[in-house]
Amino acid sequence: MALAFADAAARLIKIGQRFDSRGWVLGTSGNFSVVLDEEPLRLAITRSGTQKGELTASDILEVGDDASSIGTTVGSPSAETRLHVAIVHARPAAAVLHTHSIWSTQMSDRFVRQGGVAIQGYEMLKGLSGVTTHEHREFIPILENDQDMVRLAERVTVTLQERPDCHAFLLRRHGLYTWGDDLAQARRHIEIFEFLLETSGRMLAMEPRAK
Amino acid sequence: MALAFADAAARLIKIGQRFDSRGWVLGTSGNFSVVLDEEPLRLAITRSGTQKGELTASDILEVGDDASSIGTTVGSPSAETRLHVAIVHARPAAAVLHTHSIWSTQMSDRFVRQGGVAIQGYEMLKGLSGVTTHEHREFIPILENDQDMVRLAERVTVTLQERPDCHAFLLRRHGLYTWGDDLAQARRHIEIFEFLLETSGRMLAMEPRAK
Amino acid sequence: MALAFADAAARLIKIGQRFDSRGWVLGTSGNFSVVLDEEPLRLAITRSGTQKGELTASDILEVGDDASSIGTTVGSPSAETRLHVAIVHARPAAAVLHTHSIWSTQMSDRFVRQGGVAIQGYEMLKGLSGVTTHEHREFIPILENDQDMVRLAERVTVTLQERPDCHAFLLRRHGLYTWGDDLAQARRHIEIFEFLLETSGRMLAMEPRAK
Amino acid sequence: MALAFADAAARLIKIGQRFDSRGWVLGTSGNFSVVLDEEPLRLAITRSGTQKGELTASDILEVGDDASSIGTTVGSPSAETRLHVAIVHARPAAAVLHTHSIWSTQMSDRFVRQGGVAIQGYEMLKGLSGVTTHEHREFIPILENDQDMVRLAERVTVTLQERPDCHAFLLRRHGLYTWGDDLAQARRHIEIFEFLLETSGRMLAMEPRAK
Repeated sequence: MALAFADAAARLIKIGQRFDSRGWVLGTSGNFSVVLDEEPLRLAITRSGTQKGELTASDILEVGDDASSIGTTVGSPSAETRLHVAIVHARPAAAVLHTHSIWSTQMSDRFVRQGGVAIQGYEMLKGLSGVTTHEHREFIPILENDQDMVRLAERVTVTLQERPDCHAFLLRRHGLYTWGDDLAQARRHIEIFEFLLETSGRMLAMEPRAK
Repeated sequence: MALAFADAAARLIKIGQRFDSRGWVLGTSGNFSVVLDEEPLRLAITRSGTQKGELTASDILEVGDDASSIGTTVGSPSAETRLHVAIVHARPAAAVLHTHSIWSTQMSDRFVRQGGVAIQGYEMLKGLSGVTTHEHREFIPILENDQDMVRLAERVTVTLQERPDCHAFLLRRHGLYTWGDDLAQARRHIEIFEFLLETSGRMLAMEPRAK
Repeated sequence: MALAFADAAARLIKIGQRFDSRGWVLGTSGNFSVVLDEEPLRLAITRSGTQKGELTASDILEVGDDASSIGTTVGSPSAETRLHVAIVHARPAAAVLHTHSIWSTQMSDRFVRQGGVAIQGYEMLKGLSGVTTHEHREFIPILENDQDMVRLAERVTVTLQERPDCHAFLLRRHGLYTWGDDLAQARRHIEIFEFLLETSGRMLAMEPRAK
Repeated sequence: MALAFADAAARLIKIGQRFDSRGWVLGTSGNFSVVLDEEPLRLAITRSGTQKGELTASDILEVGDDASSIGTTVGSPSAETRLHVAIVHARPAAAVLHTHSIWSTQMSDRFVRQGGVAIQGYEMLKGLSGVTTHEHREFIPILENDQDMVRLAERVTVTLQERPDCHAFLLRRHGLYTWGDDLAQARRHIEIFEFLLETSGRMLAMEPRAK
């Protein structure tokens, strides 16, 4: 079941180009990983401080269960590597993607008092793994942002235990995390959540403001 | 009048790339078809679960009048194949296109109580087949979304009978369906309706909210 | 001073690709022309019903002062050819460009009661021919749309006489016309007006709605 | 430490293509520079009146400390060259970038009475040089626009002295200036500020308008 590193890197590079063209990873934001091996855990993950539309193979690093780099690669893995590891342990996920889009950032702030964004009744929800009807209600939890990655990874773990059905979470004013059984599914989940968050956000702007 | 399958596939692939670049078919949303033969009816249609910006010839399947796949192709035709067949029977259409854009999704929800979106006075309307003046009034019916495709196809049939002049319909929180005498016309209709729905939606956001 | 037809066609094709990528000429909207010769007047102009992002040399036709096609080319020149001719006669212009963007369409409707859109104080105004300070006040007249092209061309002529300083006009719910000493200047004017109309429109949506 | 002119030109050309694709340098707006040598100061800077998505090496000029062109190049350096020189003297910056986007233009007008835009609590702030937490508060000063470049350059100098921590400033209704230790950092800063200004602006449009 092990995925070759070169294959993994090529796919992460392509995802970066696509998300960059959509404006979802401006600056050096965003980070992406894919599981290379499960026992012991090895992840291929984007290097910290890289522009995701211009990744090369040397920008993909290999990390282990403790989120530190394996081997002789130059540079540090993404500062948020611990969150990727926490997700892979909490879910049957083989790929984790984080975008930092304008709409996910806005929605993560607008709905922080509600604890998350509830979305129901959209056909696009059917693209989420295991969902078979637009009547599905997806609750996307929002976590406060934190620079202490050990603490934040623990809160991710707790959140994913408390919300066993959620397919994604938002970090406040930081963006979207989602995952999948493979990179194709994780990429599809990103596109679905970006669509749903932008659509929900724009509908707020279109409605009368009687409040 | 039969269109060769290879030609049909090449054109659907190109339409997918274009609509994807506009953000109208995120995730694996959207589906496209074109009539290959009329008697008996044969359609080329996109495979279910494909990303429309990255279609290959193997993602285009051939289906018959009963919406099931013909021949030995791998995978299932779009879940909404029955809607394509219903449209081809109700209209003199040789191509059917469905986009799942942010603006068509919003407008399909915002105007559901009115039963549809009425658009009048826009020059862009002249691009619709048979329309010769911007004074034309186009009513785009909105149908409730449904996972029962037999039932939904019947409602499409009834709607197209009741609205013999309409060039498109919306599924609520699901997006836009339109068609044309050929793929070029159907593609033009998509672009016109996407323009008109986005323009009308943005005008709501620009106006004072005294309600 | 005569511009070779092949050069003219190549430049119009490139402008079409650029404007299409911005979403300013969806469907088959938009039309572009450039003066080939002044005495007698000969224009190269886009063919009616073409998608402006996919023009080929055969989509560029040659027309004379009476707006009818010269020579043996297939198809009809743009339905709005008379407007191009009227502009070239009223201004020292050698190129005329019309975009049909979402923002120019909205603004042409929102400000119709004021007779036009007044824009002042933006640095971008300095890109208009002859303007040297952001303090410049540009008034973009709005004309009611009309399918009678002879009558509409006369109104264009009158408007350009009454507003000798204007660099552009809007047709209501139809879009933007501007021009230039050459295609490069006309293209720059399009980009400037599209920027100014979108910026002004978005500022309306951002402000409190106390009205 | 001297950067070869050919390298500098190639990098500025690429930045122009990227910013143009985002719509941040419409018309002939925007200007970019990079330090070639510090003693005496030599800058490579974009030529005035160029479209930034289509720069060629001949559109990059060399200028000295007095903002005038060095050597035999054709054309004039950007009208705003003095602002670039002022920034390079006031900060340890080796590259200066100016975008003229729709969102930076809007925000520069909307917050002029507050003297600037204050942004705090966004993860994206961590991409700014020297910033290590999203809790950082960035204040982006807004200066009134001015056609007198000597006077405006002096005001830039004073502003950068008064605000020793700021990473950028806005010219009212004119756009964004930022800088970096090298072109990669300056480009990252542009993308971060464009993100933050668009996000903050859109949040205003999403909120209830009780004021």
